[in-house]
Amino acid sequence: MLGIWLEKEHLSLRDDLPIPTPPKGEALIRVLKAGVCATDNALARGYYPYTGILGHEFVGVVESEGEWKGARVCGEINAVCGQCEQCLNGRRTHCDNRTTLGIINRHGAFADYLTLPFENLRPVPESISDDEATFTEPLAAALEIQQQIQVKPTDRVIVIGDGRLGMLCAQTLALTGCDLLVLGRYPAKLDLLAARGIRTALADDAPRARADIVVECTGKLPSFELAQRLTRPRGTLVLKSSYVGRVPADLASAMVNEITILGSRCGPFAPALDLLARKWVDVQPLIHARFPLNEGLAAMAKAQEKGILKVLVEVSRL
Amino acid sequence: MLGIWLEKEHLSLRDDLPIPTPPKGEALIRVLKAGVCATDNALARGYYPYTGILGHEFVGVVESEGEWKGARVCGEINAVCGQCEQCLNGRRTHCDNRTTLGIINRHGAFADYLTLPFENLRPVPESISDDEATFTEPLAAALEIQQQIQVKPTDRVIVIGDGRLGMLCAQTLALTGCDLLVLGRYPAKLDLLAARGIRTALADDAPRARADIVVECTGKLPSFELAQRLTRPRGTLVLKSSYVGRVPADLASAMVNEITILGSRCGPFAPALDLLARKWVDVQPLIHARFPLNEGLAAMAKAQEKGILKVLVEVSRL
Repeated sequence: MLGIWLEKEHLSLRDDLPIPTPPKGEALIRVLKAGVCATDNALARGYYPYTGILGHEFVGVVESEGEWKGARVCGEINAVCGQCEQCLNGRRTHCDNRTTLGIINRHGAFADYLTLPFENLRPVPESISDDEATFTEPLAAALEIQQQIQVKPTDRVIVIGDGRLGMLCAQTLALTGCDLLVLGRYPAKLDLLAARGIRTALADDAPRARADIVVECTGKLPSFELAQRLTRPRGTLVLKSSYVGRVPADLASAMVNEITILGSRCGPFAPALDLLARKWVDVQPLIHARFPLNEGLAAMAKAQEKGILKVLVEVSRL
Repeated sequence: MLGIWLEKEHLSLRDDLPIPTPPKGEALIRVLKAGVCATDNALARGYYPYTGILGHEFVGVVESEGEWKGARVCGEINAVCGQCEQCLNGRRTHCDNRTTLGIINRHGAFADYLTLPFENLRPVPESISDDEATFTEPLAAALEIQQQIQVKPTDRVIVIGDGRLGMLCAQTLALTGCDLLVLGRYPAKLDLLAARGIRTALADDAPRARADIVVECTGKLPSFELAQRLTRPRGTLVLKSSYVGRVPADLASAMVNEITILGSRCGPFAPALDLLARKWVDVQPLIHARFPLNEGLAAMAKAQEKGILKVLVEVSRL
């Protein structure tokens, strides 16, 4: 089968990959579409050593025989042991023995087929299109913020970043009724949020007033510093993005201001699917480009261009 | 009067300082004893620009006429405006307009006299000795941890550092009934904790098992990295110490492991005095040296020696 292969920081389109044979407890899934995430390109730059097929945001169809056969699904990307200290304490996405689709020891979604444990599968309601369904995983990651901390309707919240994840965090945080401001660099993207009644500003025009919660969605040092400056004493700075290498952090000011710096990663799929089904989050305008799988390398390159939001890799049709 | 003066990173003993005239709402306090804190020496090294008399851990006697006259007191070190956003939201130690005894725009306790607002004063119960009372401020800082986060009796907690603050955090955290381990470098100091039934180990023999809560009390990069390594997924790393300059932090792993990094500074005085009065915290063995005020520079130098815990500056007698 066809797939986008990463090995030693080198990407290639391979047509010699075997269709995987699902181990016991796992389903064979034919991929319909998959989204390119910043993490995919970070992995290609060596953010974390990984060899295999990339891609973890997908919608597909179960091919395995049984009750799931033919179901249109997305899937939790962490396959877990269920027996380690993390799993037994309800922290399954942190399983000590986890594999992660297209990220840790598990071939990903930029391919004709993938496998995932049946327990990871989530049926996609009919009202959710294939395009929309590819956003389930990043939307779940955005919702992880509210899973971790309480966002009060009276809280002042600032999202830094108008990239893919920033646009999703902005939309999910807006649903809390909080006093939200999104800082970005691209008027065209900020306009998409403004059209939904979300207050935006260019990052260079960041306000002086500090916020209760600041969500850093860029993974870049100047934004981290801006986030620290914008977090009020005893406020929370959410790290929602990957940082490559060490970040020279001003921990003294975090101590003096008693700031909480909170790492935030994978989130809950069920509410993400609910929000997509109810159309309370609008992901369609975030799709900026589409490529067939055999142009997957171009898809990944496109996703790195400035101002580009979601790029979809179209693999097959239902 | 006599005082230890800091100016442009230069320390001096001065005998030409005027006895302060307390502004309206403030008390004149004759200092009995004062403790040397790591922050004092950090300020002397330029951690934060400050010009004036150093020292913020003290016990003294009110000299001003009125109901407080003659009272033996310690004092909250942050003098606040009561009107800014921080004050009005119960974050008085973060007052936007605060002055802080011996740290920010307010002369400190290494002198014959100091002034503080009457509202900052806390009477010291008779059962607490002058020696013990000088520990009220750092003990309150240790208690700030439990003021900020819940420490469950079943939590695994690791304190890194057997310095002054680490020894106090260890004792207050032990009172929660948590599963506590203190990592240090000095067997003699760790033995003081072991004598109270607190489990200890040398930092080089740090366990592999991760903890729910790790409290970093050294302000040093290797300890911060050890703290990150020892914090379990979704656990909390408490920053209890000052860091000079930027710290190259591994924020990517904080994000992946969804760790909470929590800055922690000044804490509540009332419970600190309660614990001292009940003798549930033992501070006497932490006193390693005493100097009269006219040898205050030697006191500050002594406090920087390896393995030295609390150094007291003895100013006057009741």
